[in-house]
Amino acid sequence: METKDLLEDNKIQEIIDLLRSDMSAEQMIEALDDYHENDIAEAYESLETEDRQRLFGILGAELLSEIFPYIEDVGEYLTEITPEQAADVLENMDADDAVDALEDIDDEEQREKLIELMDEDASADVRLINSYDEDEIGSMMTTNFIVIEEDFSVKQAMRSLISQSQDNDNINTIYVVDKEQKYCGAIELRDLILARADTPLADIISHSYPSVQADASISDSIEMLKDYAEDSIPVLNPNDEIIGVITAQDIIEAVDDEMGEDYAKLAGLTAEEDLNESLLESIKKRIPWLLLLLGLGLLTSSVIGIFEGVVASVAVVVVFQSLILDMAGNVGTQSLAVTIRVLMDEEISGVEKAKFVLKEMRVGGTNGLILGLLAFVFVAVYLHGFKAYVWYAAFSVSGIVGFSLFVAMIVSSFIGTIIPIFFHKIKVDPAVASGPLITTVNDLVAVVTYYGLAGLLLVGRL
Amino acid sequence: METKDLLEDNKIQEIIDLLRSDMSAEQMIEALDDYHENDIAEAYESLETEDRQRLFGILGAELLSEIFPYIEDVGEYLTEITPEQAADVLENMDADDAVDALEDIDDEEQREKLIELMDEDASADVRLINSYDEDEIGSMMTTNFIVIEEDFSVKQAMRSLISQSQDNDNINTIYVVDKEQKYCGAIELRDLILARADTPLADIISHSYPSVQADASISDSIEMLKDYAEDSIPVLNPNDEIIGVITAQDIIEAVDDEMGEDYAKLAGLTAEEDLNESLLESIKKRIPWLLLLLGLGLLTSSVIGIFEGVVASVAVVVVFQSLILDMAGNVGTQSLAVTIRVLMDEEISGVEKAKFVLKEMRVGGTNGLILGLLAFVFVAVYLHGFKAYVWYAAFSVSGIVGFSLFVAMIVSSFIGTIIPIFFHKIKVDPAVASGPLITTVNDLVAVVTYYGLAGLLLVGRL
Repeated sequence: METKDLLEDNKIQEIIDLLRSDMSAEQMIEALDDYHENDIAEAYESLETEDRQRLFGILGAELLSEIFPYIEDVGEYLTEITPEQAADVLENMDADDAVDALEDIDDEEQREKLIELMDEDASADVRLINSYDEDEIGSMMTTNFIVIEEDFSVKQAMRSLISQSQDNDNINTIYVVDKEQKYCGAIELRDLILARADTPLADIISHSYPSVQADASISDSIEMLKDYAEDSIPVLNPNDEIIGVITAQDIIEAVDDEMGEDYAKLAGLTAEEDLNESLLESIKKRIPWLLLLLGLGLLTSSVIGIFEGVVASVAVVVVFQSLILDMAGNVGTQSLAVTIRVLMDEEISGVEKAKFVLKEMRVGGTNGLILGLLAFVFVAVYLHGFKAYVWYAAFSVSGIVGFSLFVAMIVSSFIGTIIPIFFHKIKVDPAVASGPLITTVNDLVAVVTYYGLAGLLLVGRL
Repeated sequence: METKDLLEDNKIQEIIDLLRSDMSAEQMIEALDDYHENDIAEAYESLETEDRQRLFGILGAELLSEIFPYIEDVGEYLTEITPEQAADVLENMDADDAVDALEDIDDEEQREKLIELMDEDASADVRLINSYDEDEIGSMMTTNFIVIEEDFSVKQAMRSLISQSQDNDNINTIYVVDKEQKYCGAIELRDLILARADTPLADIISHSYPSVQADASISDSIEMLKDYAEDSIPVLNPNDEIIGVITAQDIIEAVDDEMGEDYAKLAGLTAEEDLNESLLESIKKRIPWLLLLLGLGLLTSSVIGIFEGVVASVAVVVVFQSLILDMAGNVGTQSLAVTIRVLMDEEISGVEKAKFVLKEMRVGGTNGLILGLLAFVFVAVYLHGFKAYVWYAAFSVSGIVGFSLFVAMIVSSFIGTIIPIFFHKIKVDPAVASGPLITTVNDLVAVVTYYGLAGLLLVGRL
């Protein structure tokens, strides 16, 4: 790996040197042809602002429009060139990339100005995509696609394809509309190329090619998009007209985002963070959950407060409180994580849900039995060996620890499953809402079981 | 959504009825043309074994080979038809799909038999892919790709493409090799179609098109594959010959798998689980971590045991133990989750790592200060209001709680960052190893701080 990273770094340095050199526009453009846009983008980001401003005149808007989509935070680079230049770059980009780039500019007014400076087609596309909520399919589509009519001949189709491909380079799948301009199927470019001139176009149209509504929710559609495993899927408006497409690259991004969100939420973050996050942003993303958890923790503490008498008379029970609460927490998290993925990945019926909850409880119960027995043995050995308890007393305490552990683990797997299912049912994101509630309920059940048993069975007897 | 799911269900039922009907082979194949393979696959799975066995004779190996890749657990369907029939289906599938399907068959001998029954080309492809470890790029590539020679004319290239496309349908990107059969670039099908007959092929070859080595690790390469955003990337052997390609669909799967694994590990599962997991498998995936955590929990308990005297004399401190440990755990998990994503997503230098650790501690410290102050106030109010403590005593206890919370949160964010970085450095998967270690260290630090302070400052004074 080390050598490879070095090679990689060398390549980027080569491009940087190239971009800084004073060769002619023509020479530079030809030299850049040997490098991938992704690498040029990385080099471009390493330059000084003045270098980049100078480069606009050399490379031109069209070439920059191919590089910019590979830059993650492109907003600052758009604002350091003139608005006219920026608009020129944006209108040469795919509409969805232009939308992403514009989103990077914080100043609403500046953004609006750039959209107005773009040519009519490009700004209309941007406005169309922007008209959808960020969790709707329409917000991630591109308007770069080819569409032909159902009654074309193979030759007409090929001609139409070639003329449209000047502006639209997603040509691997060609979409077909009927006389009323309604979407009716798709043709693989391969099939069109291989078709003889006299083949009826209908023979190569796949009428079963999937489509998606622009206002469908991304998280609801993502599994479908993955399952159909097509390289691009048409996006329809309510009249079934094609207004855009979702490409495989969009799906990669969406899968990455969705999973990243689930991951972040499981960790108690309100959103994913990256390396460049500012201190304030990081704090903002983390403190909401921590505040909530503090409040709930105080609630748990006040319940433990009820058992202060038990603690005062049998102090040894405190030693194992953290063990029981931690294990309940761990089991609850396992059940929660599995439940959330199941809810996201599959459509399950009420009966299946009931079966699933039951299964989780059986898993939790079996694991609880194993761990409870282990705790029963080891805690007794510890108390006898290190705390000089007689075996009877040691096993009395360890019996309560083991039994409480068992109960806590069954309850945790039940709570860890039923709470996300409940939130999913009432259309609240289960990944956000479940964690703190599960922890609290689990803690309370575990504490009441443990100290309750200890109070009943141990106080006055040890 | 409800109506849509209903429509979806109706469609699957239509296909089921169709597959069960006694229409002729020709009629059925034509009728199926109206449905997507993904939907046919779902219907196929709902049939009885006898129906499916009968269908082989009607649909034939080629059509089944298009449906089978959409079935998740295809092993059982391959074993219910004869081995000759199964091999026939497998050899018509893309090599990577065939490999996936074969992996679903548990019986090693049966698998080997099927590979031997496949035609020579197909079995060689399967053996090639199988020769790579499951975390190497080679294990997820397909051998379905088109390759042409550098010195071809546009016309020759087109002719070669058409002849190869009988067997290989990934034709959107065409790979180019030099005289020594070494990979030297790629051509987009679009550019080949739009090129005039007399254009030199060199003009449309992209020499900067990325490639990946077959023995590269998937988790190391996945970011690169995502970044280059190409629809398929060639896989090279050590001689730089193309032996396969990674498609966008493969990348979607890999991203999904990688993130799913990170997610599972964060939740304390050894691997992702789905709805159909058996009880025993679920237990197996969960119990390793639980056992480890139980052992570590016992260790923490034995440290708490040292403070039994403190507990016995100031029982009220126990009430807030869970609060401090839980918060330390939450902050540690946040830091761990952020660190793991940063380590996976970016190549960071030693200096950046140090900065990152420092930043995490500042985030943890700031949040700890806020929460510590809140705890200081609320715990005192609780003790005064509900436990009849005088204000001085209430604030003595709450001061220790608040301060311990603050210390625990700084330490947790440090430990939650440094431990995964350490494991990453020594090439141990940080997502697996970090969780339990962080929890234990955090618990120990929090317990020692809290009970230590309480012992020093409170015992004999309240």
